Amino acid sequence: MNLALFQAENILSQTGDRIRVCLKERQHEHIVKIQKLGPGREIQLGLLDGKIGRGLIVEQDQSSTIIEVSLCQAPPAANPIKLIMALPRPLMLKRVLQSAVSMGVKEIHLIHSNKVEKSYWQSPQISDEEIFQHALLGLEQGVDTVMPKISKHQRFRPFVEDLLPELIKNHRAYVAHPSPHAQTAKASTEDCYLAVGPEGGFTDYEVEKLEQVGMQSLSLGPRILRVETAVPVLLAKLSD
Amino acid sequence: MNLALFQAENILSQTGDRIRVCLKERQHEHIVKIQKLGPGREIQLGLLDGKIGRGLIVEQDQSSTIIEVSLCQAPPAANPIKLIMALPRPLMLKRVLQSAVSMGVKEIHLIHSNKVEKSYWQSPQISDEEIFQHALLGLEQGVDTVMPKISKHQRFRPFVEDLLPELIKNHRAYVAHPSPHAQTAKASTEDCYLAVGPEGGFTDYEVEKLEQVGMQSLSLGPRILRVETAVPVLLAKLSD
Repeated sequence: MNLALFQAENILSQTGDRIRVCLKERQHEHIVKIQKLGPGREIQLGLLDGKIGRGLIVEQDQSSTIIEVSLCQAPPAANPIKLIMALPRPLMLKRVLQSAVSMGVKEIHLIHSNKVEKSYWQSPQISDEEIFQHALLGLEQGVDTVMPKISKHQRFRPFVEDLLPELIKNHRAYVAHPSPHAQTAKASTEDCYLAVGPEGGFTDYEVEKLEQVGMQSLSLGPRILRVETAVPVLLAKLSD
Repeated sequence: MNLALFQAENILSQTGDRIRVCLKERQHEHIVKIQKLGPGREIQLGLLDGKIGRGLIVEQDQSSTIIEVSLCQAPPAANPIKLIMALPRPLMLKRVLQSAVSMGVKEIHLIHSNKVEKSYWQSPQISDEEIFQHALLGLEQGVDTVMPKISKHQRFRPFVEDLLPELIKNHRAYVAHPSPHAQTAKASTEDCYLAVGPEGGFTDYEVEKLEQVGMQSLSLGPRILRVETAVPVLLAKLSD
């Protein structure tokens, strides 16, 4: 927790630009047990979808830490890459989401694909609330406040045929897949859509559909990387 | 398992360039239960520290799969980056090692640092045998056969003062740390040493020691990434 993100419900009072914030549960526990911080010590805070500032711990008891903070610093720039990702198995989803969000990705589409087990869509770990919590941890890790838009698309074809062409219009758009005519990744500050398949990859049919609407195949070379490695690698290669 | 790596002990017989290989336990289970492959089907094999080829499954029973293979293809080129990494907590070590090895890293130094808990060095998960197994999984993931050299250094100063200067002589050498004078990562095909701190980073003293022997600070920008995200990102940024 390089930044403690708070929300409207955490605000006790506000005087001028000084906000009094009450943190409980996970965040309070982390401050007490991991960071070992108490009254008089400073801590970095951010308002969800707002600014960042250094706060002073003014009170602490068994269940809460109270902090006074003035928010003055804007969150870091968004990552220009928007991610389209075949739904990973639930445990990996948690890690990949946190990793992508900590790198500043602000738009993530989780899609179905032939090699995604249908049961994953029913897992409690991909509920909107769980996904929100994973993203929150990613923001706290990456010292950011801006919650990404994360959407779920349980059917491949309607997503690719009806939604994707609108999304990628006038943007760079890649699918990570070792096609014979695949390009290599080039860094740019321009917005870009990147599709990443499941473990085992997109099927040939799926790659064909993605290419038909204008996505270009992108190769990472002869090595095959796990999704949780491929996503940070591709984000690093494609953005400046 | 994009490649099943076998060793001398798996070889049943060899006639000309045709090798008869017996896989058991984890690899046999994976072929049967995950890949659902049996006699007559093809599978990619590699000899540890040797070549790669496509093999044909010729026999299979409850505990073993027998494959005939001719090895003809060289493993992919090594990654030019050599990694010096503060020992992560045991569970993360497994993931970071697999990830770095799957990206072709061939030299990894695990070192002590102020923020590494001393107890980690006693964990059974960092025994040489466990580390070998993590690396093997990384090679199988990355379709590679060449086992990296992984060494452990339980004392920071002797490593940095006595060993590091020799290692980095005539090489690019970076420490990932947001110093005020930190550079940004540039891709190159040249060999390069990269030091990555523990969660919470190297201490100022440690960075100073690393800089004194010639390592340059390297910044990843305002975001703070977890070690398991930072390693693939840095490898991607520094190698072509």
